[in-house]
Amino acid sequence: MYTHEHKVRIRYAETDQMGYCYYGNYPQFYEIGRVETLRSIGTSYKEIEKKGFILPVANLTAKYLKPALYDDLITIKTIVKNKPTVKIEFDYEIYNEKGELLNIGYTKLVFVNNQTMRPCFCPDFLTNLFAKYF
Amino acid sequence: MYTHEHKVRIRYAETDQMGYCYYGNYPQFYEIGRVETLRSIGTSYKEIEKKGFILPVANLTAKYLKPALYDDLITIKTIVKNKPTVKIEFDYEIYNEKGELLNIGYTKLVFVNNQTMRPCFCPDFLTNLFAKYF
Amino acid sequence: MYTHEHKVRIRYAETDQMGYCYYGNYPQFYEIGRVETLRSIGTSYKEIEKKGFILPVANLTAKYLKPALYDDLITIKTIVKNKPTVKIEFDYEIYNEKGELLNIGYTKLVFVNNQTMRPCFCPDFLTNLFAKYF
Amino acid sequence: MYTHEHKVRIRYAETDQMGYCYYGNYPQFYEIGRVETLRSIGTSYKEIEKKGFILPVANLTAKYLKPALYDDLITIKTIVKNKPTVKIEFDYEIYNEKGELLNIGYTKLVFVNNQTMRPCFCPDFLTNLFAKYF
Repeated sequence: MYTHEHKVRIRYAETDQMGYCYYGNYPQFYEIGRVETLRSIGTSYKEIEKKGFILPVANLTAKYLKPALYDDLITIKTIVKNKPTVKIEFDYEIYNEKGELLNIGYTKLVFVNNQTMRPCFCPDFLTNLFAKYF
Repeated sequence: MYTHEHKVRIRYAETDQMGYCYYGNYPQFYEIGRVETLRSIGTSYKEIEKKGFILPVANLTAKYLKPALYDDLITIKTIVKNKPTVKIEFDYEIYNEKGELLNIGYTKLVFVNNQTMRPCFCPDFLTNLFAKYF
Repeated sequence: MYTHEHKVRIRYAETDQMGYCYYGNYPQFYEIGRVETLRSIGTSYKEIEKKGFILPVANLTAKYLKPALYDDLITIKTIVKNKPTVKIEFDYEIYNEKGELLNIGYTKLVFVNNQTMRPCFCPDFLTNLFAKYF
Repeated sequence: MYTHEHKVRIRYAETDQMGYCYYGNYPQFYEIGRVETLRSIGTSYKEIEKKGFILPVANLTAKYLKPALYDDLITIKTIVKNKPTVKIEFDYEIYNEKGELLNIGYTKLVFVNNQTMRPCFCPDFLTNLFAKYF
C-alpha cells in the first residue's frame, strides 16, 4: 500500500451559489491527488505521457459527506492499495483543516499505448517504482 | 419511470490534451441532465431553491466507455427510476451523434431545507409532479 | 460586418457563492459565440483544425455590467467587424432574457499553422466564407 | 505599490486539445493571485465577505504571450499599483519555471456592500492594511 497527502485551497471559482464547493470539482481534486502521488514516488504523469502512455479514467465513484467551503485548505489523501496491472486504482479521502472527512473517492484508470491507442500493461519503470510498496 | 433527453455540445474548454472531453466534466453534464428533466415535468431546480430546498449530491458514480470529443453534440439521457423520498436518484446515459454509448452515470441527491439546513422529505409539489410516472 | 446570436443556459457549476455566474466563465461563452459564428457561415472550428490551423487567443477583454444568474438563458451576440488577416477579431455582447446587456467582450485570435507552429495568414476557404460580409 | 508572488501548478483539467492551458483558466489564476495578495497583507477575501463586502469584477484584460503547459509550475505575480478607493485594481504577470513571461493580466474590482448591494468605499480595515505601501 502507498499513501500520499497533498493540500490544495478551494478557489472562489469552485464554489456554487449553495455556498459549497461544487460537486463536479472533486474529480479535479482526485486528479491532483494521483498526480502528486506519482510525483512523490519519483515520476510524473507528464513523464508517463512522454514515455508513450496515457491513462484515461474508466470508473469514478464519489461520496460526499460534508461540503468543502470557500478558502478551505483541503488535504487530499491518495491511497494505492494494489499493484498496477493493466489498470491502476486510486482511493481518495478529502479532509478539511479541522480534520473532518469531507469526501471519499475512487478512480480506476487503464493504461493505453498512445501510438496504437490500445490497452496495455503498466510500463516497467512504473511497476518498479511501486514495487517496494507491495 | 421517467426519462428525458437533452443535447449539449462539447466545448473546447472541456477538452484536455489527450484530445478527450476531460472526465471531470461529466458531473456537469449530469447536472444539466437532471435540471432539464425537472424542467420537462413542469418545475425547475431554480424554483425548488426558491421554495426553500437545496439538493446537494450525496453519491456519484461514472463509467467511461468511450471518449466524448470536441464539438460532439452529445445526448444526455436522464432516467428517474424511483419516486423521490428523502432522496432523489438519477441515472444517466450519454451518447454521441452516432448513437454510441459513451458514459453511464448515477447521482443520489438529498433534500435539505435551506432554512434549517437539515434533511427533509421531497416537497409535495415535486412529489405530485412525479406522481403520474410511478 | 457579420453578426450571429446563440443562446446558452447558465449551469449551477458556473455560479459562485456570490450567487453570480463566476467572471472566469465568460471566456467560455465567448468561445461558444465564435464557434457558433463559424458554424453559421458554413465551417466549424473543428474543421479549421482538421485543415491544419489552430487559433490561439492573443488578447481578451471583458467588461462586466450586470451579473448573469443561475438558469438564465443568455444570448451571446458575436460580431465580426473586420475581415480576417493574420488575426481574427470577435466582439461579444451578452444579454439576459429581459434583454439587459450584461457583458461586453473582445478577443483577438491569431492563425497558426499546426505543423510548423508558426503564425500564418487566414486560410483561403475561411477568407472566402467571410468575403461577402465585408 | 505592493507586489506578491504565488505558485500554482497547471492541472490536466486545465489543458485543452491544443495542448495549451485553456485561455479561459487565466481569470482563475488572477483570482488566486489577488486572494493570496490579500492574505499576504494580513486579511483574506473570505474575511472581507464576512465583514459585509463583496468585490465583483468590473473589468478584465488578458494578453497571452506564450502558452502555459500541463504540469508547469507557474508563478503568478500580482501588483497593486494604486490605493483602493471605490475600486481596487490588480495587475498580473504569469511566468513559467524558465522565467518566461507567459501572460499579462489586469482586473478592476468594485466594493459592494452585501446588505444593500450598492457600491461603497473600500472598508477602513483594508485601507489601513494597504496604507504603508502607498
